[in-house]
Amino acid sequence: MTKVGKLWGGRFDTLPSQEIIDFLSGRDVRAVPACDERLIPYDLWGSRAHVVMLCRRRILSKQDGKKILSGLKDIQTLYEKGKFRLDPSKEDVHSNVESLLIERVGIESGGKVHTGRSRNDQICLDMRLYLRDQVVRSVTGLVDLMDVLLQRAREHAATVMPGYTHHQHAMVTTFGHLLLGFCEGFHRDVQRLMHWFVLFNKNPLGAAAGYGTSFPLDRQMTSKLLGFDGPTENTADPITQRWEPEAEFAYALAVMMDHLSTVAQTFILLSSSEFKMVRLSDRHCSGSSMMPQKRNPDTLEVIKGRASFAHGIVSSLLSAGKGLFAGYNRDTQWTKYWIMDLVDETGPSLPVMAEVVRRMEVDEARMLEQARSDFVGATSLMEWMVFSRGLPLRKAKSVVERAVKYAEREGLEEISLSSLEKSLREMKIEMPIREPWVQKFQDPRSIVARYGSIGMPSEKGLREEMASLQERLAAHREWIRMKRKEMERAKEMLSRMEREWIG
Amino acid sequence: MTKVGKLWGGRFDTLPSQEIIDFLSGRDVRAVPACDERLIPYDLWGSRAHVVMLCRRRILSKQDGKKILSGLKDIQTLYEKGKFRLDPSKEDVHSNVESLLIERVGIESGGKVHTGRSRNDQICLDMRLYLRDQVVRSVTGLVDLMDVLLQRAREHAATVMPGYTHHQHAMVTTFGHLLLGFCEGFHRDVQRLMHWFVLFNKNPLGAAAGYGTSFPLDRQMTSKLLGFDGPTENTADPITQRWEPEAEFAYALAVMMDHLSTVAQTFILLSSSEFKMVRLSDRHCSGSSMMPQKRNPDTLEVIKGRASFAHGIVSSLLSAGKGLFAGYNRDTQWTKYWIMDLVDETGPSLPVMAEVVRRMEVDEARMLEQARSDFVGATSLMEWMVFSRGLPLRKAKSVVERAVKYAEREGLEEISLSSLEKSLREMKIEMPIREPWVQKFQDPRSIVARYGSIGMPSEKGLREEMASLQERLAAHREWIRMKRKEMERAKEMLSRMEREWIG
Amino acid sequence: MTKVGKLWGGRFDTLPSQEIIDFLSGRDVRAVPACDERLIPYDLWGSRAHVVMLCRRRILSKQDGKKILSGLKDIQTLYEKGKFRLDPSKEDVHSNVESLLIERVGIESGGKVHTGRSRNDQICLDMRLYLRDQVVRSVTGLVDLMDVLLQRAREHAATVMPGYTHHQHAMVTTFGHLLLGFCEGFHRDVQRLMHWFVLFNKNPLGAAAGYGTSFPLDRQMTSKLLGFDGPTENTADPITQRWEPEAEFAYALAVMMDHLSTVAQTFILLSSSEFKMVRLSDRHCSGSSMMPQKRNPDTLEVIKGRASFAHGIVSSLLSAGKGLFAGYNRDTQWTKYWIMDLVDETGPSLPVMAEVVRRMEVDEARMLEQARSDFVGATSLMEWMVFSRGLPLRKAKSVVERAVKYAEREGLEEISLSSLEKSLREMKIEMPIREPWVQKFQDPRSIVARYGSIGMPSEKGLREEMASLQERLAAHREWIRMKRKEMERAKEMLSRMEREWIG
Amino acid sequence: MTKVGKLWGGRFDTLPSQEIIDFLSGRDVRAVPACDERLIPYDLWGSRAHVVMLCRRRILSKQDGKKILSGLKDIQTLYEKGKFRLDPSKEDVHSNVESLLIERVGIESGGKVHTGRSRNDQICLDMRLYLRDQVVRSVTGLVDLMDVLLQRAREHAATVMPGYTHHQHAMVTTFGHLLLGFCEGFHRDVQRLMHWFVLFNKNPLGAAAGYGTSFPLDRQMTSKLLGFDGPTENTADPITQRWEPEAEFAYALAVMMDHLSTVAQTFILLSSSEFKMVRLSDRHCSGSSMMPQKRNPDTLEVIKGRASFAHGIVSSLLSAGKGLFAGYNRDTQWTKYWIMDLVDETGPSLPVMAEVVRRMEVDEARMLEQARSDFVGATSLMEWMVFSRGLPLRKAKSVVERAVKYAEREGLEEISLSSLEKSLREMKIEMPIREPWVQKFQDPRSIVARYGSIGMPSEKGLREEMASLQERLAAHREWIRMKRKEMERAKEMLSRMEREWIG
Repeated sequence: MTKVGKLWGGRFDTLPSQEIIDFLSGRDVRAVPACDERLIPYDLWGSRAHVVMLCRRRILSKQDGKKILSGLKDIQTLYEKGKFRLDPSKEDVHSNVESLLIERVGIESGGKVHTGRSRNDQICLDMRLYLRDQVVRSVTGLVDLMDVLLQRAREHAATVMPGYTHHQHAMVTTFGHLLLGFCEGFHRDVQRLMHWFVLFNKNPLGAAAGYGTSFPLDRQMTSKLLGFDGPTENTADPITQRWEPEAEFAYALAVMMDHLSTVAQTFILLSSSEFKMVRLSDRHCSGSSMMPQKRNPDTLEVIKGRASFAHGIVSSLLSAGKGLFAGYNRDTQWTKYWIMDLVDETGPSLPVMAEVVRRMEVDEARMLEQARSDFVGATSLMEWMVFSRGLPLRKAKSVVERAVKYAEREGLEEISLSSLEKSLREMKIEMPIREPWVQKFQDPRSIVARYGSIGMPSEKGLREEMASLQERLAAHREWIRMKRKEMERAKEMLSRMEREWIG
Repeated sequence: MTKVGKLWGGRFDTLPSQEIIDFLSGRDVRAVPACDERLIPYDLWGSRAHVVMLCRRRILSKQDGKKILSGLKDIQTLYEKGKFRLDPSKEDVHSNVESLLIERVGIESGGKVHTGRSRNDQICLDMRLYLRDQVVRSVTGLVDLMDVLLQRAREHAATVMPGYTHHQHAMVTTFGHLLLGFCEGFHRDVQRLMHWFVLFNKNPLGAAAGYGTSFPLDRQMTSKLLGFDGPTENTADPITQRWEPEAEFAYALAVMMDHLSTVAQTFILLSSSEFKMVRLSDRHCSGSSMMPQKRNPDTLEVIKGRASFAHGIVSSLLSAGKGLFAGYNRDTQWTKYWIMDLVDETGPSLPVMAEVVRRMEVDEARMLEQARSDFVGATSLMEWMVFSRGLPLRKAKSVVERAVKYAEREGLEEISLSSLEKSLREMKIEMPIREPWVQKFQDPRSIVARYGSIGMPSEKGLREEMASLQERLAAHREWIRMKRKEMERAKEMLSRMEREWIG
Repeated sequence: MTKVGKLWGGRFDTLPSQEIIDFLSGRDVRAVPACDERLIPYDLWGSRAHVVMLCRRRILSKQDGKKILSGLKDIQTLYEKGKFRLDPSKEDVHSNVESLLIERVGIESGGKVHTGRSRNDQICLDMRLYLRDQVVRSVTGLVDLMDVLLQRAREHAATVMPGYTHHQHAMVTTFGHLLLGFCEGFHRDVQRLMHWFVLFNKNPLGAAAGYGTSFPLDRQMTSKLLGFDGPTENTADPITQRWEPEAEFAYALAVMMDHLSTVAQTFILLSSSEFKMVRLSDRHCSGSSMMPQKRNPDTLEVIKGRASFAHGIVSSLLSAGKGLFAGYNRDTQWTKYWIMDLVDETGPSLPVMAEVVRRMEVDEARMLEQARSDFVGATSLMEWMVFSRGLPLRKAKSVVERAVKYAEREGLEEISLSSLEKSLREMKIEMPIREPWVQKFQDPRSIVARYGSIGMPSEKGLREEMASLQERLAAHREWIRMKRKEMERAKEMLSRMEREWIG
Repeated sequence: MTKVGKLWGGRFDTLPSQEIIDFLSGRDVRAVPACDERLIPYDLWGSRAHVVMLCRRRILSKQDGKKILSGLKDIQTLYEKGKFRLDPSKEDVHSNVESLLIERVGIESGGKVHTGRSRNDQICLDMRLYLRDQVVRSVTGLVDLMDVLLQRAREHAATVMPGYTHHQHAMVTTFGHLLLGFCEGFHRDVQRLMHWFVLFNKNPLGAAAGYGTSFPLDRQMTSKLLGFDGPTENTADPITQRWEPEAEFAYALAVMMDHLSTVAQTFILLSSSEFKMVRLSDRHCSGSSMMPQKRNPDTLEVIKGRASFAHGIVSSLLSAGKGLFAGYNRDTQWTKYWIMDLVDETGPSLPVMAEVVRRMEVDEARMLEQARSDFVGATSLMEWMVFSRGLPLRKAKSVVERAVKYAEREGLEEISLSSLEKSLREMKIEMPIREPWVQKFQDPRSIVARYGSIGMPSEKGLREEMASLQERLAAHREWIRMKRKEMERAKEMLSRMEREWIG
């Protein structure tokens, strides 16, 4: 039992894991490291690729290249051992790396690493490499979540429950259908993130300050060594618009968080004392410091709070990108912090939600009970009157509306034969109606069985959608594999060329 | 001469066209029509496709189908003649059309048009059809603007000017390079809008209230008749997330407006009394009601104002989509107005900007003059010292920094031989330096000629980028043609099937 | 019965009033008039005050003044009769009024109305006058809503219900306490709006284009004639910051809409099939076009949608106000439309919510029932153990936590004597416990009676708060009366001076 | 010389101070501590006040009170010595303090500290105390900035320069007037922040989980001991709306940042190579890693970036506050981080801007030169024709408009006698005009001398405004003094009562 048990927990069978506690505590007791710490590996990758290219182009001599590459390798090793920390008296990661390099290999060689490059293209590069990794990571998290949703949907393909509109009982649906509906949103999130690659997996290195350089750089080569699809076709564009790859990512995450927040809100309600259709695992709830009985769905609420954060970040990024004068403006440096905070806030939401869904208990009996209440079968009954009895829909609807009113006055929550007959009489419609039909066409399971078309909550509808999602998931996983491989290959090519050089 | 001439205009050779006056007056003197007015054609298209499908599926009899289709055709004709206006006492476009239909063909047939459908899927459909048209229209506007930018870039491929960073002279560039840089942003805007089709060109019809219907609908058929790539794979998803296609479009437009606002801000500055590098056409300027000499770049400022509006709409949409309970919520009805206002605000910005760029005068002499001032050639000089003289970049930079300081003290804006020599001496670096070299490597045209790689402002760099953009533009135009054709084909197929039915 | 009854309504006893239908239809079937239409009366007021001042200062001759004032009076009469409509071929309200004036009284006099003024200060003035009226109108709407909440709180001061945290039963409260809690938020909204006057009830007239004029204007006089507290102390400030009074108002309304959205969300849940604690009047619900049984709380959902709109407007205004170059920028013209749309969207939300609350039925029995479920009395029982039995809170809480767990296993929703005893035994605490105590300290009414301090849901707590709110409401009403009077007085003074002049 | 000098700086006479380097490096190389670290002193203050009150009310025995207060005192001492750090395995500051207390004084007494309180009211209290301090701190920073602006305005009261509208020369103004205009915005920021106290300097302690407690708390007493104006009048309100004091503060800061961003943008332009009217101190500029000549106004750009951040935070807060169900929701915990980041981002902007303004060099000659260019005196000339020659303004304006056109064709930037005469002839207006008048009424200094009324850029106008600002500043300082005193007094009272108790 963790220490958190001291303030609450006597009611709980299981306590939240440390991961969940961290998720809930947020930044209360967690510091946020300097942003450039995360950029170190990307900055080194970029510098190594740059130097290899400079050597190939004979802008650097073999000897200088060798020294610099060895120096960078050493720094990489230091970093991997956790022994390279940024010195706050140097402005940023770029200055830190360059200073350390010069310190280690001397100004005569080390002072050449920045040849034909500016911090403008360097940070632009670092951020694209960083964002690219985050995109792949987010896609992975989404795919895992979809997997769990799909699994539980399969389990509950036939678990009937009320489908809601306006927070009111609308028509019968199944819990599986609800979960698959959520999946579709996450599928689009995946597609949106993948599209980031189309727009921004382009190499800005060589843009220098935005206007290039007179050194005869080979931007195609660095593109290959860094796993890009090619160099940006204009050098000023990525420098002026140094908020747009960030905005693209932030927007995709903001929509994803809205999707997650809808899942969260839905489960918050379904698990409330009044709905009681699902029960979250103890490990996803918190207690109160004061009230002994509390079992709060904090995990889900926190996701909503984080969604609001994502909204703000999109606002900030759009605001930062407005009315800029062409060329680099330091305003955009700040986008770095926003994106990193956003990554921290959204990242864990995906695995946490996957766990919540995986462990959630579903009360099928309660769902069925609610699927019989509040006239949730009225539409089905009406449709039967239209389809089998040939009544125009508008008339059939009027008939059933009145029947609902009369049944309600009798204290019922389903339409009774008598109320329906009264309504038909009043509207002067003659139609043979029998008790078993009235019951059958309001019966949840029989309603579900009749939903006939693509995407609807019938057994067939769900089977088809699940097959389709299965296929889409497989394609997503293949995409992840491929992207990871491309990046690996670029790194290997770089290492190979370095080895050739260093010997 | 328009009446606006009364308050100002005596200084102007040409006055703004009515189109520009409207663009500038915004909603000051222009009313905004009821939103559903724009949805009438889409609503009718949807109803016709729905009814044809109901007939094929024998949910409606041939006779009922015939009556309804004729009725809808009449309404369509009325609308096209401008004689069908929405009655505000009926809730929306759907109620208006259905009521009028029933009025015209009677309740026995007309009362069947809504069979197997809800306003939930109907509005969802209407909005996707509307948005789809707007996406294509925006892409068209972007492509036209890119065309103009490309044209003017070609004209000014070699027009040197200062490239800026931090609003300060950085390195020499060309006006053509600046314009091509802008093009790249608009290219991504096109890609972003095209991606909308991938995510949302899916048919929601048949989702009904979100949980389908017991009528045996053929959602594949209506998808074809409406030009969709297929039906949505889940019926609840498009209903719950009825803010997401809107948000996607709004986000794409917000980024586009940020791009436009950067073009605008850049030209506002370049056309100011202090920069004086470009001069807007009289027809894109306004005068003052008070100050006789004013010639204001209102057209460009207004674009910035509209960009801020776009930011807000993205915020509103993300806010509307947060924490929804699954199923339809009326909150999302409001997204309709936001999107339509956004279309109104952003739509004309593209052709207006294209006109501004097309008619703008460029002062090449002034650009050249500025390209010689404020030490804009210092980097080039430094790079020469590195490349030809083998000085480590960090040392060369220190040398030139000091040289700048000394030259500045002499009241110069270029590095002089003497200041450079003084600096070298101080740093104890021996290096032969000659006057012509110092001049040559700071000369704007000669600097530009030396930029060597992809995307840089040299003649070669520009030629390559222009060729690439030309190709990309052609592909965009092909996409537009194809999408338009697909929609036309769907409409033709529908008409054909209607004719078979109506006879 | 309105026509809306055709698509739904057979289940309803009463149908929504036209006002509610309009509120729900939003801009579906309602056009938005040109924005400057609303500014006509303010523009005329401003011009009259300006001309009277010019005359007093002998900048205009008596004769010119007389002619202009008569002309303006005629235009005012036209406007009041609905016969003055803006001509869209003239840029804005200012040009429209001035042109018409010149048309009517000739250029020799009419051409002098704009002496010593620019459209920059004129629109700034018009907007402050417009916003000022909206501020007073909003305060009035808030006060009326608070009144209704207070009334219903009085009725239900003792109606016990579960108080929630995290959407879960927390402790017992009363429905009156809930309503009073809402009142406090609206009270702050009133204060926030009042503060607008402190910041912005300052006269910008005379600022001209932002840098004044050489005419010897009397800005104190126009301030009095327009009901301002004085002239702005700098002429450039109101022109540059022509987004700030708008932002201030928008922010106040955005917070107000968030408050309303919380009231809305709370009642949406309380009126759901699962909570069933309140029932909205039929006249605040809508039916479905498809589902016969539906009775949806659309009125409340629409308020949430409108809240999201308000968020976006705040974003747009902050974005518009960022990074402006000093002096007027046309970007800010767009703020006019945003504010007017916001007024349209938020304005009716207040009276609509007041009506919803006034007519809502409260199910006291259901509330009481829920106030006994899900261990909502556990805290009270624990507090008794602390207060009367001297157990440290942390121990008492542990005891009760376990007791909850055991009772739950027995299928109970209240702590039983046996489960409490078991828990005490396990924790080795000796304490005499008796059945009646266990029951009493979990009984909702007896719990409420024991809440002892300021602001809590006891009878005394509510009585005090109601008295305080009553007083605050009276002060608000007095403020409204006073502000209205000040404006009236200014208008009267102006009329008096005009009469002196015109004769 | 700091190490930053390695990458750039050879051109600079002075290098930025560490404070400026930190401001520019942002979070690149700076970590952000756990948020609750900052709440420790507030949490302790709250606990001490709570316990003293519990003792007075005999809810705690004298002995327990004594133990707890001593324990808290010890923790306070630890904290002040930097020896109390939060343990991340405990959820938050509240758990940390309570656990440590129990560890030190035992469960029998320590386990009683949380009697009659919840973390809900505790964090609400902590945040109000924290925000209150930040409000006072921000007001102080604003007052200091206004002081500097006022000082420099005094220096440059008569320094003429072009006043701009639409980024174009509009009318003559003075640099002093520009600065005073900025002051007015900051004055409103002060008022806005002060109003925070009116709305939120209310004590939430005792609200417990939102529904009070059965312990007979004295909320008036804790209010006094914590420096509040009184307890919140409803216990649920501050708990449900735990985003509103945050939003209020964030909005005030967002407007303040927009004001700062306008000052920043104005100085960025005025210091550009093209405007060259002011020159920032070397210590507020940065160099480039690549370009030797660069002297960038980074300090000012960074302020714009931070402004965009503030916009987003307002969005996030409004989003978090939308559609909440009554009672506490964990969503709002996240507001804590946003506000603290906002404090970090905005806080230093005020002193940094004050320094920038203080050290900025003003080029009076260049300003004068520009104040003669681009027909900036045309309006003044026109006004003279109206005032002295009785020409209707509309006619005079037409005359001067044409004169501008003709003079421009002659290559002039001021209206010449000949162009004016030509224009008069064409318009058939007879009016004696003489060369010296034409010159005089376009002469910058003579124009400024004629501005006659309140708030305009004449000597008199500035003198009056400076006197008024002086007075307002004094009042602000008095407010700060008073608020600080009130807080001090509360702390003293608490210490006194503790001493009585502990003995």
